[in-house]
Amino acid sequence: MPQDSRPRYNQPLGGNEMPRFGGPATMMRLPQQESAEGLDACFVGIPMDIGTSNRPGTRLGPRQIRDESRMLRPYNMATGAAPYDHLQVADIGDVAINTFDLKKSCDIITATYSEILSHGAIPLTLGGDHTLSWPVLRAVAARHGPVALIHVDAHADTNEAMFGEEIAHGTPFRRAVEDGLLRCEKVFQIGLRGTGYAPEDFDWGRNRGFTVIPAEARWHKSLAPVMADIRAAIGDAPVYLSFDIDSLDPAFAPGTGTVEMGGLTTIQALEIVRGCKGLNLVGCDLVEVSPPYDPSGNTAMIAANLLYEMLCVLPGQP
Amino acid sequence: MPQDSRPRYNQPLGGNEMPRFGGPATMMRLPQQESAEGLDACFVGIPMDIGTSNRPGTRLGPRQIRDESRMLRPYNMATGAAPYDHLQVADIGDVAINTFDLKKSCDIITATYSEILSHGAIPLTLGGDHTLSWPVLRAVAARHGPVALIHVDAHADTNEAMFGEEIAHGTPFRRAVEDGLLRCEKVFQIGLRGTGYAPEDFDWGRNRGFTVIPAEARWHKSLAPVMADIRAAIGDAPVYLSFDIDSLDPAFAPGTGTVEMGGLTTIQALEIVRGCKGLNLVGCDLVEVSPPYDPSGNTAMIAANLLYEMLCVLPGQP
Amino acid sequence: MPQDSRPRYNQPLGGNEMPRFGGPATMMRLPQQESAEGLDACFVGIPMDIGTSNRPGTRLGPRQIRDESRMLRPYNMATGAAPYDHLQVADIGDVAINTFDLKKSCDIITATYSEILSHGAIPLTLGGDHTLSWPVLRAVAARHGPVALIHVDAHADTNEAMFGEEIAHGTPFRRAVEDGLLRCEKVFQIGLRGTGYAPEDFDWGRNRGFTVIPAEARWHKSLAPVMADIRAAIGDAPVYLSFDIDSLDPAFAPGTGTVEMGGLTTIQALEIVRGCKGLNLVGCDLVEVSPPYDPSGNTAMIAANLLYEMLCVLPGQP
Amino acid sequence: MPQDSRPRYNQPLGGNEMPRFGGPATMMRLPQQESAEGLDACFVGIPMDIGTSNRPGTRLGPRQIRDESRMLRPYNMATGAAPYDHLQVADIGDVAINTFDLKKSCDIITATYSEILSHGAIPLTLGGDHTLSWPVLRAVAARHGPVALIHVDAHADTNEAMFGEEIAHGTPFRRAVEDGLLRCEKVFQIGLRGTGYAPEDFDWGRNRGFTVIPAEARWHKSLAPVMADIRAAIGDAPVYLSFDIDSLDPAFAPGTGTVEMGGLTTIQALEIVRGCKGLNLVGCDLVEVSPPYDPSGNTAMIAANLLYEMLCVLPGQP
Amino acid sequence: MPQDSRPRYNQPLGGNEMPRFGGPATMMRLPQQESAEGLDACFVGIPMDIGTSNRPGTRLGPRQIRDESRMLRPYNMATGAAPYDHLQVADIGDVAINTFDLKKSCDIITATYSEILSHGAIPLTLGGDHTLSWPVLRAVAARHGPVALIHVDAHADTNEAMFGEEIAHGTPFRRAVEDGLLRCEKVFQIGLRGTGYAPEDFDWGRNRGFTVIPAEARWHKSLAPVMADIRAAIGDAPVYLSFDIDSLDPAFAPGTGTVEMGGLTTIQALEIVRGCKGLNLVGCDLVEVSPPYDPSGNTAMIAANLLYEMLCVLPGQP
Amino acid sequence: MPQDSRPRYNQPLGGNEMPRFGGPATMMRLPQQESAEGLDACFVGIPMDIGTSNRPGTRLGPRQIRDESRMLRPYNMATGAAPYDHLQVADIGDVAINTFDLKKSCDIITATYSEILSHGAIPLTLGGDHTLSWPVLRAVAARHGPVALIHVDAHADTNEAMFGEEIAHGTPFRRAVEDGLLRCEKVFQIGLRGTGYAPEDFDWGRNRGFTVIPAEARWHKSLAPVMADIRAAIGDAPVYLSFDIDSLDPAFAPGTGTVEMGGLTTIQALEIVRGCKGLNLVGCDLVEVSPPYDPSGNTAMIAANLLYEMLCVLPGQP
Repeated sequence: MPQDSRPRYNQPLGGNEMPRFGGPATMMRLPQQESAEGLDACFVGIPMDIGTSNRPGTRLGPRQIRDESRMLRPYNMATGAAPYDHLQVADIGDVAINTFDLKKSCDIITATYSEILSHGAIPLTLGGDHTLSWPVLRAVAARHGPVALIHVDAHADTNEAMFGEEIAHGTPFRRAVEDGLLRCEKVFQIGLRGTGYAPEDFDWGRNRGFTVIPAEARWHKSLAPVMADIRAAIGDAPVYLSFDIDSLDPAFAPGTGTVEMGGLTTIQALEIVRGCKGLNLVGCDLVEVSPPYDPSGNTAMIAANLLYEMLCVLPGQP
Repeated sequence: MPQDSRPRYNQPLGGNEMPRFGGPATMMRLPQQESAEGLDACFVGIPMDIGTSNRPGTRLGPRQIRDESRMLRPYNMATGAAPYDHLQVADIGDVAINTFDLKKSCDIITATYSEILSHGAIPLTLGGDHTLSWPVLRAVAARHGPVALIHVDAHADTNEAMFGEEIAHGTPFRRAVEDGLLRCEKVFQIGLRGTGYAPEDFDWGRNRGFTVIPAEARWHKSLAPVMADIRAAIGDAPVYLSFDIDSLDPAFAPGTGTVEMGGLTTIQALEIVRGCKGLNLVGCDLVEVSPPYDPSGNTAMIAANLLYEMLCVLPGQP
Repeated sequence: MPQDSRPRYNQPLGGNEMPRFGGPATMMRLPQQESAEGLDACFVGIPMDIGTSNRPGTRLGPRQIRDESRMLRPYNMATGAAPYDHLQVADIGDVAINTFDLKKSCDIITATYSEILSHGAIPLTLGGDHTLSWPVLRAVAARHGPVALIHVDAHADTNEAMFGEEIAHGTPFRRAVEDGLLRCEKVFQIGLRGTGYAPEDFDWGRNRGFTVIPAEARWHKSLAPVMADIRAAIGDAPVYLSFDIDSLDPAFAPGTGTVEMGGLTTIQALEIVRGCKGLNLVGCDLVEVSPPYDPSGNTAMIAANLLYEMLCVLPGQP
Repeated sequence: MPQDSRPRYNQPLGGNEMPRFGGPATMMRLPQQESAEGLDACFVGIPMDIGTSNRPGTRLGPRQIRDESRMLRPYNMATGAAPYDHLQVADIGDVAINTFDLKKSCDIITATYSEILSHGAIPLTLGGDHTLSWPVLRAVAARHGPVALIHVDAHADTNEAMFGEEIAHGTPFRRAVEDGLLRCEKVFQIGLRGTGYAPEDFDWGRNRGFTVIPAEARWHKSLAPVMADIRAAIGDAPVYLSFDIDSLDPAFAPGTGTVEMGGLTTIQALEIVRGCKGLNLVGCDLVEVSPPYDPSGNTAMIAANLLYEMLCVLPGQP
Repeated sequence: MPQDSRPRYNQPLGGNEMPRFGGPATMMRLPQQESAEGLDACFVGIPMDIGTSNRPGTRLGPRQIRDESRMLRPYNMATGAAPYDHLQVADIGDVAINTFDLKKSCDIITATYSEILSHGAIPLTLGGDHTLSWPVLRAVAARHGPVALIHVDAHADTNEAMFGEEIAHGTPFRRAVEDGLLRCEKVFQIGLRGTGYAPEDFDWGRNRGFTVIPAEARWHKSLAPVMADIRAAIGDAPVYLSFDIDSLDPAFAPGTGTVEMGGLTTIQALEIVRGCKGLNLVGCDLVEVSPPYDPSGNTAMIAANLLYEMLCVLPGQP
Repeated sequence: MPQDSRPRYNQPLGGNEMPRFGGPATMMRLPQQESAEGLDACFVGIPMDIGTSNRPGTRLGPRQIRDESRMLRPYNMATGAAPYDHLQVADIGDVAINTFDLKKSCDIITATYSEILSHGAIPLTLGGDHTLSWPVLRAVAARHGPVALIHVDAHADTNEAMFGEEIAHGTPFRRAVEDGLLRCEKVFQIGLRGTGYAPEDFDWGRNRGFTVIPAEARWHKSLAPVMADIRAAIGDAPVYLSFDIDSLDPAFAPGTGTVEMGGLTTIQALEIVRGCKGLNLVGCDLVEVSPPYDPSGNTAMIAANLLYEMLCVLPGQP
């Protein structure tokens, strides 16, 4: 092959070179490398579920998301995005958390992401339970300063504590606010719903400037207009996207641990991620996929798609 | 704890006192008691599937609904309802049906519900196959006189007979009409669809005054306006709500026995139940959850949510 | 029974004669016969999955579709269709494909369908992977000349080749065009979406006259108006309907092999098939049901329903 | 094909004529016929589970057993049996039980089997819950007089009643004794174990002459010597074989409703059935396969194998 | 009922009073009480899986074990044991562990068991991951002094640490030795096998006096003789029985997290527990049942049976 | 780390460096490399199922075997083997078969294995359907001359053809004999059983010198003595080990496609592989794992264990 026709960037292994059910079980069958050096963006797994409060299993999320990502081809037929024509991307494997100690795991995560970010790579995280967003945001804010946040979820995750513990999958954004990691007036929570411990459960963030868009507010409707508003409000601030798969209705994403009915559709999910195009995204995560609760693999497949769609809206693409 | 700060009503066991995956497998981890004495409302199970005509399994419905209800917290974030601040509620266990004889089981159910109703408690039934609505209505009408009915279902359940039998899960509302238990002009059937034995299958009720709202009539649309009409039509008549989980599209509720495609969404389901606020509800049931057909537990979790939403719209709350 | 009251056409075995979970595992529990002789329409299975590129299992599709079809009753409550009052229909069993050789299987299929079509029967195919549409279309065009096509799918299936092979489940409609089997200006592809090998993946057909309606173009909307346009455009040309179950969002049809999120709803699926009423349908298929990926059987049940709905819109009914 | 080389008897459809995953879903893909006329033996299904006391699902047993029987080839490699060289066999479909009334179903079963037996065919029953053995034995004894019995099961099924009912899946052999259908001194119960309501639960039969061989008595050992003793004891008396799949340890047969650990192995099961060679078998059943509890189909596959092995030891073969 | 015929002890709810698929989801449908006061033995759950190193899910073990225990009747047909004729037994619910902190959970467990033991009740623990045996043994040894141990498992669980942590499900018995809780010369480990980090992995205990009986040593053989030796060696010392369900071959117990092939049979498991009759048992646990990996419930059903068999060999019965 | 303490060989990634549910999804979490250069042995996957005749799914076998191999630690506790102390081993990924053409795939396999063998590495193959053994043996015999064979299977796989095709998963060893790849007097087939097309199905090999050990011949017995005989008979001839997971009883290995009851236990499987110690093994395969039929992953876990045990008996270890 002549020099100039060689791809300049890593490419996903194609189905015409290796059947889709073979090949490496990396994200999108991309090359794997040890660190984020030289990358514009990287997929990284956090195999953790010790922060979950109901059904377990998200520790296996990264493995199943990678496995099911094997169907993904490089071009986005809906948006025309071609991320592998413009970005150097790889799978850099998993964070070696301490599965017997949640607090130590958080420190390991922050340290790992500081190293990733030091290379200038944008991390796209395969979770893992939602606790991880807090230690990731610590590293992100250390590099970028406080960030805007688009938080898609059935739950506010702003509890003061769970069972008396400050660190759990229901508290990351309260901790993030307390640590000064977020620009509260540029925080948007989409998809909240369900039952709570007090009628004010969704108000803690509101009282600090968050905009809350409950699922009910957008039932039967597109989320595209909402995203236009959000883009306008965030402007060019650095922004982090945290996508909890339980924001989706369980019809679409049965494989998760704390299920709430009446949620978003996958169409709305795509509208949200595609609606981030133009934002200054500095990090993204997709959390709470629990493989044992969806043996078909479809929840993980949707997660893999959403991670790919996040890649498609990262800065640096035309 | 000082006297005046003690809760006046039973409270669900909270996740900060016992992990959600532990604690008693009662409905919402409420206290269990033997009878309905002293209660405003009670959850009661009818573990029955011998009236089903296709897939079995609803005998295990009450067990799985209770199990999956463990995630539910006391406050309704969407409506602001706080049922445990205003009503005394408990789980009173299961009806001891005779699983080898459907007809005898019906008599046992009527007797049990007469006893429940004698305490002034409103029963919220965890089914069980839909046959049960007929014997429950016998007890309800004995206390309240003929009632209005909101019947959410894929099927009209007004067959003359099934395999020559008058009692089966396809006949309860025909029997109820024949027994004079219903105010036919205040009967509303929502979600009907699918195939039938004759083009007139949905007309038996219509010919007696029922209003039939087929699923197709509300495709792509909210059910909130329909419920406004229904509330106006029913007024302050005593009303019974019978919710067959197969009214939902199987995407949302795969765990049931007689599946029909093109059904309601969970959003529409919530619109229906929340739309009952203000009605004089005297009893509710949630039937046809078949655990073996949804090992994820999500169908039962949705059923538990809908039963909680029913509790939230019972009379006696502000 | 007096002569004139006997049904003139085959009838599905009813639930009042045999419980729905018993009786023959034929399509809708219809009589089975060896050939299509004397039939207006026939159900026929093609138990094949060796053309699939990702998850296998469609070889078992016909068996599971037949099994789950047992719930279907003869009358269409939504449309009033009564196909068994007007058409002679039977299940003629499966095509004896050669499961070790895809190319030979295609020839077997063409030969079998030529025989079926020679009796004047309209084949309703239970797939099987999508490769089968090409050999079926060879037989159809041999009888009817080039046909119009309504192709419902997540994928265009117009690849030049897969892994260098011309015959696979991603190529049937390219082969069909090359063989002159289609009237390209009367080809409609509905539901396309997802990722591709090149931004032009959906344009091959467009460049030859196909109309492509991506899923995104009809998100949140009814497909009824689209079908009106299609009916107008097709007129009275002979038309073939090819329905890939993966056109549906995986929430509705998890049991398939090449899943793409953000797809059609079952409501839209019904709108499509019911929207074919009045067209000169000469053949239909329902492909890509993979039983191992939906042990509940619900995907197959939906497939069975859609095949029944296809029967309801065949010519020859009032 | 010349006249004399044509098979004189029905043959299972072979895998070289139709792929194993295609073809009719009859037992072993044999021809189906309406009645037992002209047959030496017949497979017949009883799709019933309303007699079960714990997990449901056996109503679907006949369907899944037939489906999974597709792998079976005509010759028994271990014993050399070639049943289709010597016996005319067909699948005669299912008994149309009344699924809403257990007692009526029993009468339907007895009537149906009387008709089958009137043709001189030996019925091999695909269950269905164990209640069915009693009505079958009524028909068998009506033709052959009281019979010997080999009863393989985890449970004695000689309860006086269940929940006050005389007819249920825990009572058939008590009813059979009371009705004089059995030669009690020639009754052998193999595999009994587990917990009971009273220490004497297994003694009711013993007190009437039954020989009980608890599972524990043959742990780690072959059952071949036991079968030799049983053959000697039964001699040439007409004998009925009733095989409850729950006699097997749940490792081997997870798909059943009333599971007891520490059971027989499939090797012991084969030893039992093969050990019946030489007996005057007049009927056999294989009961209690519950498909929802083994989606892999392997329990049904084992059941299909055991039914085939029963066929291999019927009289009339060399 | 006259005074003297009333049962003196709690009895499991029988199937003739309430169908087995109904009634309270307590262990064996026994009465539940808050504390162990007045009890000879109690069932208690520890819903924990944060100590597991591979697949999660044991947090749901107690719930599923209780659910599946519903089939158990009071009498042991094999041994004649009648525990409810001689012991006062109840289900005292779950320990409220802190699911976000393993170390704190251990302290909660020790405190809870100290309270249980203070009533003189023998705890039968429904696990939960194996970490729990260490905190339970701390409480047991505080009351009884160092105890003998029968430890049935695929793994030695005597690692120095896991991922640097001293507390995890692979370390409890090392910690117990270090804490002086065990009489090392009276410790028996049965069923060990598989792969390790070093050839000496099973020697740490041996070097301190443990007797190790690898699974291979008893392949194809009864464990009854081994138990006779163990009884002789332990004599009348207080003894704790810790039974990890992964000691069983995965054929028998698929629903667990760290699976090793070539394990014990359920027959051997029964031989072990029944072989404890006559020992001075002061506590028992059954750990590592992971419901998501056995949706059939059979692993939990076996666990429930083994817990019942443990009850049957407790002191205080004839 | 000082030079001389560094491991000389690749080591599996340990659980104290990365949680077992994280890290690369390679076999045993070994390093992956592109070719077999420099290796003593290599794990290689063949993701193929187009040669299967019943249930599909083995195309996904290599992926699931690798995934479930994550639990395996380096040392063999039963045999003391320490393969990673003596052999350089890596995972070299999958063979890029042509999933649309079985015959071409066979040529691709032979070419790939010729390349592997040219490096002097012993291939341990993760299947894939059993067709693959033929093309692998072509490459093996090209290097080593005709080989001895230990073939563990439920089926003889010596059919003349399947559906008229010479290449399929029921024919590899007939083709191998015809091609002169085997030393027929040193071929041993263990575990054969089930039904056949003719009583002579197992005799084709016998007539050419094969030794057939049907499963029945070793029921209830150890296979260790058999392996001693086999070792003596094979001597120092080069030998290939082909292990079909369906040799095991479905209780132990439910996740496969052509299930036969009454098979080997996992204990016998370990006896077979461990019994190969001392033989001159030149290649091994483990075939027919079908993930969709065992979502628990346990069948794949057993396959991974057996592949590890094969590694433990390769030449070059003390």
